[in-house]
Amino acid sequence: MSLLIAMSQWDVESWRERFRRVLPGLDIVALGEPFDRRAVRYAASWKHPEGALAGLPALEAVFSLGAGVDHLFRDPRLPDVPIARVVDPDLTSRMSEYVALHCLIALRQQRRYDRQQRLAQWIDDRDQPAARDVRVGILGMGVLGLDAAGKLMALGFDVAAWSRTPRQVEGLPSFAGPEGLGPFLARTDILVNLLPATPETEGLLDRRVFTQLARGGRLGGPMLINAGRGATQNETDILACLDEGVLRHATLDVFREEPLDASSRFWTHPGVTVTPHNAAMSAPDAICALIARQIGRLERGLPLEHEVDRARGY
Amino acid sequence: MSLLIAMSQWDVESWRERFRRVLPGLDIVALGEPFDRRAVRYAASWKHPEGALAGLPALEAVFSLGAGVDHLFRDPRLPDVPIARVVDPDLTSRMSEYVALHCLIALRQQRRYDRQQRLAQWIDDRDQPAARDVRVGILGMGVLGLDAAGKLMALGFDVAAWSRTPRQVEGLPSFAGPEGLGPFLARTDILVNLLPATPETEGLLDRRVFTQLARGGRLGGPMLINAGRGATQNETDILACLDEGVLRHATLDVFREEPLDASSRFWTHPGVTVTPHNAAMSAPDAICALIARQIGRLERGLPLEHEVDRARGY
Repeated sequence: MSLLIAMSQWDVESWRERFRRVLPGLDIVALGEPFDRRAVRYAASWKHPEGALAGLPALEAVFSLGAGVDHLFRDPRLPDVPIARVVDPDLTSRMSEYVALHCLIALRQQRRYDRQQRLAQWIDDRDQPAARDVRVGILGMGVLGLDAAGKLMALGFDVAAWSRTPRQVEGLPSFAGPEGLGPFLARTDILVNLLPATPETEGLLDRRVFTQLARGGRLGGPMLINAGRGATQNETDILACLDEGVLRHATLDVFREEPLDASSRFWTHPGVTVTPHNAAMSAPDAICALIARQIGRLERGLPLEHEVDRARGY
Repeated sequence: MSLLIAMSQWDVESWRERFRRVLPGLDIVALGEPFDRRAVRYAASWKHPEGALAGLPALEAVFSLGAGVDHLFRDPRLPDVPIARVVDPDLTSRMSEYVALHCLIALRQQRRYDRQQRLAQWIDDRDQPAARDVRVGILGMGVLGLDAAGKLMALGFDVAAWSRTPRQVEGLPSFAGPEGLGPFLARTDILVNLLPATPETEGLLDRRVFTQLARGGRLGGPMLINAGRGATQNETDILACLDEGVLRHATLDVFREEPLDASSRFWTHPGVTVTPHNAAMSAPDAICALIARQIGRLERGLPLEHEVDRARGY
């Protein structure tokens, strides 16, 4: 009985070591080496090559090695077994750190003070807004969105959130569905995307959305923070809206093609902050421990936690 | 009966307008113009010239127009009347925003990612520490220190605080007095100064303190954030300790001489972030409203709030 590591990037051997430590009862095998396909009961995938999980007759579950599962659904030959997402408190906190950092950089005009420092200029801003003057709008009310909302509220920001289907959370103004999107955007100075990549969210962050964001806020123009998925953004529209002043700034951790090509305008645009898809790095030890716990549940006849709904895509 | 605006910087007329709105029953006069010295019952000062408050026989109280009161005690002819500090929830939140921002910049290595962006380099860090791996130590457990501690804890940082005299706050490890300083520094990766400027804190942030900070933490070396007062820092020691690697980074909002001279090494040192004393700008409207409320208390025979203890110096 074995667990198959199925990835096309990253270092397989370090993952094998980690899985061996937490799952001593399983053989740990990997793509690209000879292994008994009939013995594979579990697969742990990060962007596995198409078809790599087909023809595994004993396969009982697939675990994603990162927060997203969209990479799995790109494989048309993905077997019809339960799939579990990673819901990791560590990853959640890191995502909130990232979102709080970039909201605070915008609020406190740190880019301006960095420029002033390079010029040895001592110029303060007596009109500095406070966090309560800045309206953050979070797309997504899953574990990530709610954690970020709570931390931004603790810092004093004026926070609201939007989700696909209505959700009520004490103290958090929320909007839902296509009809809630307009009013949500109209009260948003900083738009934070934490939605999963699904057919429904494909290209959602486009000109139509950006032009509905609040005008006249205290930041001198609306801003975008995308720490979710690259597939959710229309990159041509982001650059055009930055050029036209529809957007004042975009902080992007994710892109349609990663790594971002060295020739991309995102690197050099003065209104863009690029980070290398590290907003919420999955800590490998934590992920292996979560998967070991899930396998323990299955072996005891319990259902998977955080199982993916294939119809929703997350 | 009048209130005297006594300042040597800033725009007197805008303050006069604000005070007129909230104190319609008082004449609002200012240094540098003719006024009846016998009619001055209250003075609102920011760095008034030496002796400017002497010879005011009806003076009943002095209000500082900013968070610090050290500027008042530089005047040896300061009259012996009650002095009130500004304790403003708005100023407090802004200070915490600043501290959280600069702790997050350090935690999330934003300076490194800024450099990488300039070089179009896509390099992530799989060893990224989380907030819980970083120990922040706050000097000062007044209103500012406790608010910052709460917000940093909400973000997940491992926070402790030090104060002159022992204080107990639920959930916040705390140290006190000269004998508590060593153990406090030994568990601190990011040292945040929020102490007032007093004879006791003069030059406190020196080599002796920096060499006691934690070695081997997850940030690659200890860091200093001074959002308190310039007089608390030994600037020669900060630069030398940065050069020697005793300190990895210093984020300084305050300096011994402000504005910072264009020739200062702080502007160009790669390990220094300079901001122009704007961590917690006092919102003038809020300060005038607080002073009007204090005057209302005095007129009704109630004592001042937030009165300064002259022996402590704050």
